[in-house]
Amino acid sequence: MKTAFIGLGVMGYPMAGHLVKGGHEVTVYNRTTAKAQKWADEHGGSYAETPAEAAKGADVVCLCVGNDDDVRSVTFGDDGVLAGMSAGAVLVDHTTASAVVAREVSAKADELGIGFIDAPVSGGQAGAENGALTVMIGGEQTVYEKAVPVIDCYARMHQLLGSVGSGQLAKMVNQICIAGLVQGLSEGIAFGMRAGLDMKATIEVLSKGAAGSWQMDNRYETMIDDKFEHGFAVDWMRKDLGIALEESKSNGARLPVTALVDQFYADVQEDGGNRWDTSSLVTRIR
Amino acid sequence: MKTAFIGLGVMGYPMAGHLVKGGHEVTVYNRTTAKAQKWADEHGGSYAETPAEAAKGADVVCLCVGNDDDVRSVTFGDDGVLAGMSAGAVLVDHTTASAVVAREVSAKADELGIGFIDAPVSGGQAGAENGALTVMIGGEQTVYEKAVPVIDCYARMHQLLGSVGSGQLAKMVNQICIAGLVQGLSEGIAFGMRAGLDMKATIEVLSKGAAGSWQMDNRYETMIDDKFEHGFAVDWMRKDLGIALEESKSNGARLPVTALVDQFYADVQEDGGNRWDTSSLVTRIR
Repeated sequence: MKTAFIGLGVMGYPMAGHLVKGGHEVTVYNRTTAKAQKWADEHGGSYAETPAEAAKGADVVCLCVGNDDDVRSVTFGDDGVLAGMSAGAVLVDHTTASAVVAREVSAKADELGIGFIDAPVSGGQAGAENGALTVMIGGEQTVYEKAVPVIDCYARMHQLLGSVGSGQLAKMVNQICIAGLVQGLSEGIAFGMRAGLDMKATIEVLSKGAAGSWQMDNRYETMIDDKFEHGFAVDWMRKDLGIALEESKSNGARLPVTALVDQFYADVQEDGGNRWDTSSLVTRIR
Repeated sequence: MKTAFIGLGVMGYPMAGHLVKGGHEVTVYNRTTAKAQKWADEHGGSYAETPAEAAKGADVVCLCVGNDDDVRSVTFGDDGVLAGMSAGAVLVDHTTASAVVAREVSAKADELGIGFIDAPVSGGQAGAENGALTVMIGGEQTVYEKAVPVIDCYARMHQLLGSVGSGQLAKMVNQICIAGLVQGLSEGIAFGMRAGLDMKATIEVLSKGAAGSWQMDNRYETMIDDKFEHGFAVDWMRKDLGIALEESKSNGARLPVTALVDQFYADVQEDGGNRWDTSSLVTRIR
């Protein structure tokens, strides 16, 4: 397939690489052109000077940029991907963004006969590098099916969850669950350390029962050892929690602990933890 | 071995039964004698009229009662187990209680040459019935070893975690982790339902990733379907969180979300949910 990939950050760079390995023809675009050039040199694909140019003639165009405004900036206008794409092509947005922007892009794409799915990912940098991401998808079945041969290149799991926006909403559920979970784990670890427990032995026992979680299995040691370079950064978590809290204003969901944990992450940022992973939440109470 | 089991509640009743199946000689005591009589009829063991009498001549005496004061009441005084036990015997307390009472009982036992371990369990009623409990233990290695042939009858996993009180402290860590985790999951589910997501499909995807947990795997359906008869009751959770919050006053741990969730459980009690399982936390925000 002829594909384009817009946004070569820590996620997009390896994801676009997997498209080449999967046998697709790939043209990339990145705000900093030097990085696009480097990517093309390494992978044997090509790069373009604008999103529109990269998207020209592509069957599937993927985005993975920073936030709602970045999505709008690479999608709309004379240089945006929609200006370059043809009717019948499919636009896949892997950015974690709002359901609002997903519906906005979808409406505009629809007018042009272009398919759209919102498809935020989880699995982090390691998942992107190993082609083992999980992709939560919102949109129409037929559009989703056209994108599957592309998504398959970097995802271990992908699922259509409902109409446009559902991918973003599911990602919000994910981050909301993680916020409470990581705070609970942080309080448990902080308490256990102050109580003088052998935390390795304790977690060994607890992790098999009703307190068990992926976070407990994979982060308790780094939380005890103050090693916070193992995943998703606090700045990005606050962006995602901000999106969820904003959405809750319109759907009426009550998120008291999510809102509180968002503020706790502000404490971590204040302590210089912008780039620490989310398990650094423990630092403010240890 | 000659054993005694004090307290035939939903946990103790089947646990004492497993001792008989394991080939031990068992004498039980229960505050309501009729229940002890029923147990003895069913299992072929014997029952006694006081804890002291039940404990007489036993190598290992197990307690599984309600709270700190219940532990004191069946342990101390002329009718308490310590009055019946001989030097060299071992007292195992399976009650979830404070580390303070564990140290108190241990000190008194020590004066009499009796060994003591605190050994709260997790795994709930199902774990007790299936002999699949997890036991968190505090005390001395030699004392623990004497109790192993007894504990093995109803536990799938047991581990010595440190000096007397460590079992109780580890159980507190467990409940603290669960408090934040279940609230995060509740907020995620409440948000997803209001957002109109297919929650079954959504959780299917999320449960494999960084938001995954035992609670998500085992409780999300019952939380959506309002079925709260599947485990540990809210009244008992509040008792346990109360113990943890009290302990945090002396060890200095900060538990903001644990304290908040304890108050949220008070809302559930106010709504008549005293006997609902802990996942009923979702009801106050759905």
